Amino acid sequence: MKYINHDDLVNMAPRYRAQIINSLSGFKSANLIGTRNEKNINNLAIFSSVFHLGASPALVGFISRPDSVERHTLKNIQQTKQFTINQVSENFWQAAHQTSANYADDESEFQQTGLTTDFIEGVNAPFVKESQLKYALKLKEIVPIPLNNTLLVIGEITDIICEQAAIKTDGYIDIESLNTVMVSGLDSYHTSQRLSRLSYAKPDKLPTKISLDNEK
Amino acid sequence: MKYINHDDLVNMAPRYRAQIINSLSGFKSANLIGTRNEKNINNLAIFSSVFHLGASPALVGFISRPDSVERHTLKNIQQTKQFTINQVSENFWQAAHQTSANYADDESEFQQTGLTTDFIEGVNAPFVKESQLKYALKLKEIVPIPLNNTLLVIGEITDIICEQAAIKTDGYIDIESLNTVMVSGLDSYHTSQRLSRLSYAKPDKLPTKISLDNEK
Repeated sequence: MKYINHDDLVNMAPRYRAQIINSLSGFKSANLIGTRNEKNINNLAIFSSVFHLGASPALVGFISRPDSVERHTLKNIQQTKQFTINQVSENFWQAAHQTSANYADDESEFQQTGLTTDFIEGVNAPFVKESQLKYALKLKEIVPIPLNNTLLVIGEITDIICEQAAIKTDGYIDIESLNTVMVSGLDSYHTSQRLSRLSYAKPDKLPTKISLDNEK
Repeated sequence: MKYINHDDLVNMAPRYRAQIINSLSGFKSANLIGTRNEKNINNLAIFSSVFHLGASPALVGFISRPDSVERHTLKNIQQTKQFTINQVSENFWQAAHQTSANYADDESEFQQTGLTTDFIEGVNAPFVKESQLKYALKLKEIVPIPLNNTLLVIGEITDIICEQAAIKTDGYIDIESLNTVMVSGLDSYHTSQRLSRLSYAKPDKLPTKISLDNEK
């Protein structure tokens, strides 16, 4: 086993360290965040830091990097207080990656990457038509993290659009059936293969495999 | 496509809603967090909310649920200011899930699940010997999130232990080769299958597939 201590870390070339550290947290979700600016230009950007924060109220968070450089997603959310999150699937993972290119303020990543906008009433932000699991959020809070000048952006889910067949009896959504992809490191994309769902863990017995529908 | 609005969400049975909402963020990392209490009892708990926060300084965060109920991991970190994060692999995913059972304060999840402790000098928290990618952290900050009484726990990475062969030329760690697993929803475990690494995205050209070593 390779052992890396704090001095090794500090002395690493920045790009090498970025690759190492970005690999440590494990597999990361791949999501496109859709926003709109005041000129109604639609913005789309891939994020690997979207995470579940709570079910009641239904809260989701993501990390925005320092706003010392221009961050269209953050700026748009601050203006409109709304955004969408769209799971990335195997059908458009390369177009999704391409949204991370540094396009100008007045260029829409939708046009540049060939992805399609979709709208619903009451949501002033674009969905990705190609995504089979997506939801709209209203901004609840932006929590500054002074340690490294990042921001934790928290939204409350207002509307969900999901392929019906993927929603199982107990509410579990089979995102593997939607071919949802994930990220490792900064740039590696993966599909998934299910081992199993497991029963709720209790101290006195080992967990057992349960069916996708959580039924006998 | 199924459309769920805010009223539908609010009126859902709590367990059903928890399953739905926990599925929305996409695939989640599976990590075991190791801590030690003041009586030197080793604690181990699975978390699906560990995420990358920054490479310089090397920061990782995770969400701890409300501390109105007893949370051994949180309590131990507050006491010792140290913890370990250990990627869960296909070799011990069921034992990892079992750590979520509600064991008493004086019971170690290591003994209860058959996982093995491992220690290095200067780190007052147990590693999981079976894990092939693990690291120690010192507590930097606990950020309260009043919206739902969760806590964002942030640690700085001090030591990394990783299977040498998984570290590629440019620092990318091939966590697929370590059989690292991921979670969807509350209880489904998955292995991964790589699509490809992609080149850094630029506005004027489409990304291309790159080798695992990021070499020609």
